[in-house]
Amino acid sequence: MASTGDKRSVAFEPAFAGYAARVRASFARQGAMALIGAEIVDVAPGYCALALAPRPETSQQHGYVHAGILATLVDSAGGYAGYTLFPEDSSVLTVEYKLNLLAPAQGERIVAEGFVVKPGRTLAITRGEVYAERNGGRTLVALMQQTLMVMHGKPDDGASRRGA
Amino acid sequence: MASTGDKRSVAFEPAFAGYAARVRASFARQGAMALIGAEIVDVAPGYCALALAPRPETSQQHGYVHAGILATLVDSAGGYAGYTLFPEDSSVLTVEYKLNLLAPAQGERIVAEGFVVKPGRTLAITRGEVYAERNGGRTLVALMQQTLMVMHGKPDDGASRRGA
Amino acid sequence: MASTGDKRSVAFEPAFAGYAARVRASFARQGAMALIGAEIVDVAPGYCALALAPRPETSQQHGYVHAGILATLVDSAGGYAGYTLFPEDSSVLTVEYKLNLLAPAQGERIVAEGFVVKPGRTLAITRGEVYAERNGGRTLVALMQQTLMVMHGKPDDGASRRGA
Amino acid sequence: MASTGDKRSVAFEPAFAGYAARVRASFARQGAMALIGAEIVDVAPGYCALALAPRPETSQQHGYVHAGILATLVDSAGGYAGYTLFPEDSSVLTVEYKLNLLAPAQGERIVAEGFVVKPGRTLAITRGEVYAERNGGRTLVALMQQTLMVMHGKPDDGASRRGA
Repeated sequence: MASTGDKRSVAFEPAFAGYAARVRASFARQGAMALIGAEIVDVAPGYCALALAPRPETSQQHGYVHAGILATLVDSAGGYAGYTLFPEDSSVLTVEYKLNLLAPAQGERIVAEGFVVKPGRTLAITRGEVYAERNGGRTLVALMQQTLMVMHGKPDDGASRRGA
Repeated sequence: MASTGDKRSVAFEPAFAGYAARVRASFARQGAMALIGAEIVDVAPGYCALALAPRPETSQQHGYVHAGILATLVDSAGGYAGYTLFPEDSSVLTVEYKLNLLAPAQGERIVAEGFVVKPGRTLAITRGEVYAERNGGRTLVALMQQTLMVMHGKPDDGASRRGA
Repeated sequence: MASTGDKRSVAFEPAFAGYAARVRASFARQGAMALIGAEIVDVAPGYCALALAPRPETSQQHGYVHAGILATLVDSAGGYAGYTLFPEDSSVLTVEYKLNLLAPAQGERIVAEGFVVKPGRTLAITRGEVYAERNGGRTLVALMQQTLMVMHGKPDDGASRRGA
Repeated sequence: MASTGDKRSVAFEPAFAGYAARVRASFARQGAMALIGAEIVDVAPGYCALALAPRPETSQQHGYVHAGILATLVDSAGGYAGYTLFPEDSSVLTVEYKLNLLAPAQGERIVAEGFVVKPGRTLAITRGEVYAERNGGRTLVALMQQTLMVMHGKPDDGASRRGA
């Protein structure tokens, strides 16, 4: 299978120094990330990797990881990849994404990587890849293309938003 | 907001009499459906509706239902809508889908509806809609377009697949 | 095949009285519409229909209408459906779309319809359907889901844009 | 902007020796390729590049190349990238694709590249990139993710198909 991207080719400048801490704080506020057992693997400018360990609770009817769980993971990876490049006083919103499922997702660990392709003032475009790690190997199981929106003047802060 | 579809305009013939029981049995084998709290609302030829009640565990960072949870629900609704029309000795696989997020998902109940647009021997195309029910009203929060594959000769039976 | 939408269920208010004339003027500025032989069939608030007659020049290798030509037609139909609801001092930009090809496109006429699903201040979401008319019948040959952007303060006026 | 792929990382084996000649013959049968002024730049296993020179006839209302023309070009580039890996007695069908428009397409030449991500017996998944070349520079103007179908036992031969 061809490589479909390369983290190291990314050379984006974050908009403010606290970009990684902001991603981690936002991630911690997502109940859905805890529900599916996701954790942050890496955050870099224009890049984010998330992972989870498959459990019976994340399965579809054949015992593989459910496509929706993969989608939850890679949608967040892409969203946070974009968010690393957004201004300080902003939050991130997924406008839409498209996901191809390429192979059954099974193994010890599922890793979703998000890569910014095109940052912009209002919209950002990302790509996402989901890999299943099994017996020392790595299989591409899903491929995503995503559109994000920069929510200017709306910092990602659960308390203030819920109180609004 | 315009209506985007109509369950009653669908007039498909199921391929075998047990189509609804088969969907319910397959649904029961999905750990991910229990994890997100999903239940079946309706199954009809070329149609399936699933629902869940939002909880903190299904939220994103602003307290709304996570896009990935909506995706898990509507991907399954579309998949089972298609599965109602598949032959007896087959299972269903999601090839890909595209999801637009239209409004924050909040309320007492989230309902995802899947509609078959074009059934086929190898592939089936569906549309999906996700609604948030709140205070007696109903808001369209997500819109999906999906491609399914008919897995001929591979009945949806968790035990045999896991043992294979 | 199920009906996938209904023009008459749309009840949108245009943002200004000249919405249809603006669509026709913009359409006339598109060289690509003349190249593929497209013409406007109908413009209504939140709706636009375009059509073309298949020619050898619009074919793919098997003699059917090329998917890209269908895409050109339905992308424009969706874009103009959205544009009917945009403010006077704005133009329309396609952010992205997803297109499923459902059946070979052949016949006397190809009609693409665009329907607004969700208008918004910055983004608008549409659906599109492409039909092939043949021997008095009508076959759904493609299905689209599209995201548009409202370009505020940038009226759709070729002369001024080219001079900018 | 980040690089989003690399032709040289592709290492696919074509299914039969005449893969490139087959692509060129199929391309020559497409009236739509001549209509938009497209030509083949390169064909390699799992890869195809097509190009065109912008003309007034390929423009949208602001004078840029129409998104549908870009779609026609990159849909074909992705389809032929996949076709290089298909068996001798087969043809290629686009099931669906999703296209993001990233920047206005203008310049001396538009180049669309298609890359196979995952070949398969029935389906193949590709990515596509469209670049505008202008004043010695190169801008990524569109990004595609595509699903193809292998039409076994249906060789790509216009004459026989039209006579069927």
